[in-house]
Amino acid sequence: MGTGATLVTAAEVAAAAATLADVAVTTPLLPSPWSPELWLKPENLQPTGSFKIRGAYVAISRLSAAQRGAGVVTHSSGNHAQAVAYAARVFDAPATVVMPDVASPHKIEATRQLGAEVVLVPPAERSRRAEQLAVEHGLSMIPPYDHADVIAGQGTVGGEIADADAEVSTVLVPVGGGGLAAGVATALAARLPRAHVIGVEPALAADAQESLAAGELRPWPAERTYQTVADGLRTQLSELTLAHLTARLAGILTVTEEEILETTGALLTEARLVVEPSGAVSAAAWRHRRGELPAGRTVAVITGGNLGPARLAELATAAA
Amino acid sequence: MGTGATLVTAAEVAAAAATLADVAVTTPLLPSPWSPELWLKPENLQPTGSFKIRGAYVAISRLSAAQRGAGVVTHSSGNHAQAVAYAARVFDAPATVVMPDVASPHKIEATRQLGAEVVLVPPAERSRRAEQLAVEHGLSMIPPYDHADVIAGQGTVGGEIADADAEVSTVLVPVGGGGLAAGVATALAARLPRAHVIGVEPALAADAQESLAAGELRPWPAERTYQTVADGLRTQLSELTLAHLTARLAGILTVTEEEILETTGALLTEARLVVEPSGAVSAAAWRHRRGELPAGRTVAVITGGNLGPARLAELATAAA
Repeated sequence: MGTGATLVTAAEVAAAAATLADVAVTTPLLPSPWSPELWLKPENLQPTGSFKIRGAYVAISRLSAAQRGAGVVTHSSGNHAQAVAYAARVFDAPATVVMPDVASPHKIEATRQLGAEVVLVPPAERSRRAEQLAVEHGLSMIPPYDHADVIAGQGTVGGEIADADAEVSTVLVPVGGGGLAAGVATALAARLPRAHVIGVEPALAADAQESLAAGELRPWPAERTYQTVADGLRTQLSELTLAHLTARLAGILTVTEEEILETTGALLTEARLVVEPSGAVSAAAWRHRRGELPAGRTVAVITGGNLGPARLAELATAAA
Repeated sequence: MGTGATLVTAAEVAAAAATLADVAVTTPLLPSPWSPELWLKPENLQPTGSFKIRGAYVAISRLSAAQRGAGVVTHSSGNHAQAVAYAARVFDAPATVVMPDVASPHKIEATRQLGAEVVLVPPAERSRRAEQLAVEHGLSMIPPYDHADVIAGQGTVGGEIADADAEVSTVLVPVGGGGLAAGVATALAARLPRAHVIGVEPALAADAQESLAAGELRPWPAERTYQTVADGLRTQLSELTLAHLTARLAGILTVTEEEILETTGALLTEARLVVEPSGAVSAAAWRHRRGELPAGRTVAVITGGNLGPARLAELATAAA
């Protein structure tokens, strides 16, 4: 790599777990209905419906009281927005969330209901506007993945897997910006070094696979990644997450749109879990790409459950 | 009462928890989306989709190897059928399940897929036929609630609540045959004696409320109880469960059909949990009868998630 990025340590993940003790749910490993070899880690059951609460809360907790008093800011159209709003409220910190003006009214409203001030901007201006607000108002930026504290927080998912099952052979993790995969791989490299942490991406947003193969960031244009239904996985790796994945990930594979939606439906009707498409790619890899996976006990991290009502109705109706 | 029934002890519930360690999921307490005071205990995430695995497995584990080799039998149209089939398979014990010939093909098939032999009979003959099979073939009967080992197994739900939250003030438990409520009240009377365990029934199947008020069993005819959508709660108390509830339950209240379905939908779309109507009555009591409940931290036990595909589609479509 040669970027000289400092990698998060397993000790930092363990410290994050202590920070999260009263905030995040220690999600169980659920036996899957499909095989005694496959277990599900249902992060869709977290407050605000995704693992994102872990990283957002840890990052905010590491700020000084003065920084928290001044407020935090982020930009997100998805689960990170609600996670930052929720975590900031726990600390009584003002939260500003910059969202694209094309975001679903449902998600905008959910973020507002958690007490955040929502600023709507054209999609291309999100990042710049959030940085501008940070500078102008002295707000602390809580990025969705490109931050050591966020990676350490997401890594607690891996620590819990190691606590629950020392025999696990493979852990399947959805990859968008790569923060969760970076953290989980960090925790498991220390705790269960023989386990394989494998990333899973939509084939329509396989920038992480391409970047890992090339040994450098290969961002894909939004025109391509925005075609996948897995809207939480359209984002690109950063130098920091790529450095972690290069050092610690055992492999990465892709799943098709059909495979993602089939699995989202199966999780709903057979595993009794409301999961969004982004959260289902890990289980999709097991259901459809099993030949590409190592043998043995496997955990699929189910990352989020914020399935839109129209999609929920569509999947439920298809199964009836 | 004067029935002289021997009540299950907290020590028997603790022993059951040890028996279940590798079989049942230790379900977490999930913060509800509705109030920081309300937590959900999602037993719909158990193998076969309900808490019934706990009692069925404990009862089968207490049989001798010879008894297990001869096989077990039960009668059920619902979650207990699948739980017995699943638990028997763990022990390599042959399982026979007598089901009414009007049971849904979906449930019959699920029970068969778990390896049980399913015997279909007219509804009125279920119990007699199961007893006849037990005698003729030397099978051990695993009843759905009228059995000390089953009550001890279901009581482990209460032990886990005490483990997770020593500050809980009220635990809301659905009541059908009363096995779960009997066990949970037993565990909490010993572990958290200041907590109130409150039963919840559909108003259309309020035989437990009437029996508790009368101090004796007051079974309701099936013509009445079969009108409730909460098909898991149509059964009647037994002398054994009534004795437990009389001694240990703090109260019992009822919810309407509308309240049950409203809550089933809210659990699906807001808590991201697929719950059957019977499993939702506890949360329905909190959402609709809060004025009748003690103040303070409350846990609603969500008992099962075997929602039929048509009902799932109906609820999802209504929310879209």
